[in-house]
Amino acid sequence: MQDDLKDRLCDVVDAGFDRQVRFLSELTAHPSTRGNEQSAQDFMASELAARGYEVDRWQIDVAGIRHLPGFSPVLGPYEDAVNVVGIHRAQAPAGRSLILNGHIDVVPAGPLDMWDSPPFEPRVEAGWLYGRGGGDMKAGLASNLFALDALRACGLAPAADVFFQSVVEEECTGNGALACLARGYTADAALIPEPFSERLVTAQLGVIWFQVHLKGLPAHVAYAGSGANAIEAAFPLIRALHEMEHRWNAAKNRPADYAHMDHALNLNVGKIEGGDWTSSVPAWCVFDVRMALFPGQPIDAAKDEIEQVIMDAARENDFLRNALPEIVYHGFHAEGYALSQDSSAKAASAIAALDQAHQSATGEALAREAITATTDARFFGLYADTPALVYGPRAEAIHGFNERVDLESVRRVTKATAMFIADWCGTEEI
Amino acid sequence: MQDDLKDRLCDVVDAGFDRQVRFLSELTAHPSTRGNEQSAQDFMASELAARGYEVDRWQIDVAGIRHLPGFSPVLGPYEDAVNVVGIHRAQAPAGRSLILNGHIDVVPAGPLDMWDSPPFEPRVEAGWLYGRGGGDMKAGLASNLFALDALRACGLAPAADVFFQSVVEEECTGNGALACLARGYTADAALIPEPFSERLVTAQLGVIWFQVHLKGLPAHVAYAGSGANAIEAAFPLIRALHEMEHRWNAAKNRPADYAHMDHALNLNVGKIEGGDWTSSVPAWCVFDVRMALFPGQPIDAAKDEIEQVIMDAARENDFLRNALPEIVYHGFHAEGYALSQDSSAKAASAIAALDQAHQSATGEALAREAITATTDARFFGLYADTPALVYGPRAEAIHGFNERVDLESVRRVTKATAMFIADWCGTEEI
Repeated sequence: MQDDLKDRLCDVVDAGFDRQVRFLSELTAHPSTRGNEQSAQDFMASELAARGYEVDRWQIDVAGIRHLPGFSPVLGPYEDAVNVVGIHRAQAPAGRSLILNGHIDVVPAGPLDMWDSPPFEPRVEAGWLYGRGGGDMKAGLASNLFALDALRACGLAPAADVFFQSVVEEECTGNGALACLARGYTADAALIPEPFSERLVTAQLGVIWFQVHLKGLPAHVAYAGSGANAIEAAFPLIRALHEMEHRWNAAKNRPADYAHMDHALNLNVGKIEGGDWTSSVPAWCVFDVRMALFPGQPIDAAKDEIEQVIMDAARENDFLRNALPEIVYHGFHAEGYALSQDSSAKAASAIAALDQAHQSATGEALAREAITATTDARFFGLYADTPALVYGPRAEAIHGFNERVDLESVRRVTKATAMFIADWCGTEEI
Repeated sequence: MQDDLKDRLCDVVDAGFDRQVRFLSELTAHPSTRGNEQSAQDFMASELAARGYEVDRWQIDVAGIRHLPGFSPVLGPYEDAVNVVGIHRAQAPAGRSLILNGHIDVVPAGPLDMWDSPPFEPRVEAGWLYGRGGGDMKAGLASNLFALDALRACGLAPAADVFFQSVVEEECTGNGALACLARGYTADAALIPEPFSERLVTAQLGVIWFQVHLKGLPAHVAYAGSGANAIEAAFPLIRALHEMEHRWNAAKNRPADYAHMDHALNLNVGKIEGGDWTSSVPAWCVFDVRMALFPGQPIDAAKDEIEQVIMDAARENDFLRNALPEIVYHGFHAEGYALSQDSSAKAASAIAALDQAHQSATGEALAREAITATTDARFFGLYADTPALVYGPRAEAIHGFNERVDLESVRRVTKATAMFIADWCGTEEI
């Protein structure tokens, strides 16, 4: 790529950055928690249409993806699960095609009084944009879109197909990205600007979600002995799961990308509910667990071990022995994925292109990181033979309170993305 | 009392018993959980009015009882908390006045699939009536009413004031009974047919309810270390509370009525809720606790110790040390009460009258029991100088599934109650 084009792309990103921040603020104001993404998707679809992209907007059909590798079970209906894809077709395709992927769904805000300002009323302060989803990952959706805008402002368009994806379900199943694959959207590479501090993600963990349902026939509280309480019966099960977590993290189980991490795999009891009345011995309790696994660790074996651990602990409990827990899978069946293990020429050239774009945009070498979360990258990398580059801005407190994203970082990532697109896809005049 | 009257009362109870069971079925069909007692109270009021009693129906005014001894804190509004009292005034008062008290509120049914038949569709099978509240204590409300009916069927009425009370809030605060006191309903004795197997309750425990609210600023699940989880932070607090429970139950702390019980005081974690998302480290958790105390154990000292135990345990926890729990009292501040400690002549004569009525109705001596629950008896006994006789039918699985009440036991209690009223109040022709 000519230095001249690099400079021009940087200039137009700068020139349009106030507009980009306003766009990000408006997008972040849509409270697009799971099931509530419609207004945010409407906004994305209208922004794409206004730019002249062909817009594909559809409801995920579980029956159409259930049989595919990477599918995660879902409990509820998918009537409210809508993906949006904006399609750019080159006039004279010459370069390599690209998927620009981002998820529109955000995790719940949690107790509002723990936020310094309302989570869905984004504000900018001292270079940070605050708000739920601002970092994870609406800033990435914005940088994808405004990187394309930057090319256009230079009188250019990608010389290959580009699919701009705004997907749901990243935070619980990944079925949104999977539905894009099933609908036929494939390309030579994918870029996903998840907020990992401008580092290239070389590996990500797998994640399993499960619920443990406890139920039994307790005595009246006035006659309650110990151990007959469905809430307290959960405690030894959680203890046993933590022992499993400890075993899974043992040095001998770690792949190379995670060899240096003592505790990459986290087990999280994310939710609990039980009992109906203070003076009744609770007859039921449900708790939700997220457990991570290493790339290469098979989901089925992991599930078998989780079930074994829970049942073994239950059999040692007076209350549970006669009413064994029910285990319900209510989300992620996500395998781990390591870009570092992709030895294809396509992967090497995509990484090289991003290396160079990042260097040009920031003046620094692109750092690498193995992350302890999952992303939608796995669908492209594992099931579509497509190298997936996870590379996005710096954010803090994602899934926490006062989530915020560093706007100068967003600016740099937008520039790097524009240069990456121009390099990877090539350009044609518009 | 003449043997002839005893026989006549028994005969008319028998003659009306099918009607009484139908009444109990209809009353049990009203799902009068806390806040939903209105239709059941409408039914009670109309049944009382149809019998010619003056009916007093009023909404509890918290401001009017807040300052009274025995008041328990409430979190919600009391717009839906309505008491009903049916009033009988003797034409020529000659005997001792009487309060016939029962509570209309029932505890939640819990998971419906654990019931063999729907909890609010009562059914009779093999001599038992099944349904939530059938035993605790709508059978008692029915026996109070049909005992009065029995006198009437014999052409008699009590020769003293009788206040038939159908109160709310017994299961969480007792403020319904307290509001009756505050409204001026006092008498020479009270009878409360709570379902304790036709035994006279000689002592009951006190009960305190509290909620523990945990909140903090956790990390993203991908970086979660141990101990930063609001749900799991609850576990050591619950453990510490059980140690306190153990200390309180020590032999040296037991009053005479409970000297033989190793574990009269039960701590129950009745409800828990925490977290919003499986993959977010939970920032909050709330659990509800019921703890019992012995008669004579002061509420304030008990609360101080509970708070101390919770705070001490919290200070040992990395997560909680910087965000100490909040303790909210959301119900019972109930002192214990022991009829056995009431050395008044009034108490002795009331007990003697019940002894005799029970002997006449059942052919057996009246057994005594110190119970490990609380009842509204404390208001009459502790704050109104009124001996309160807790004596009602046999029931099973109260607060549990398939709650049921023994109908032959209800019949016997109704007979005994009719004879007790006739003896205690005397009778006059109608």
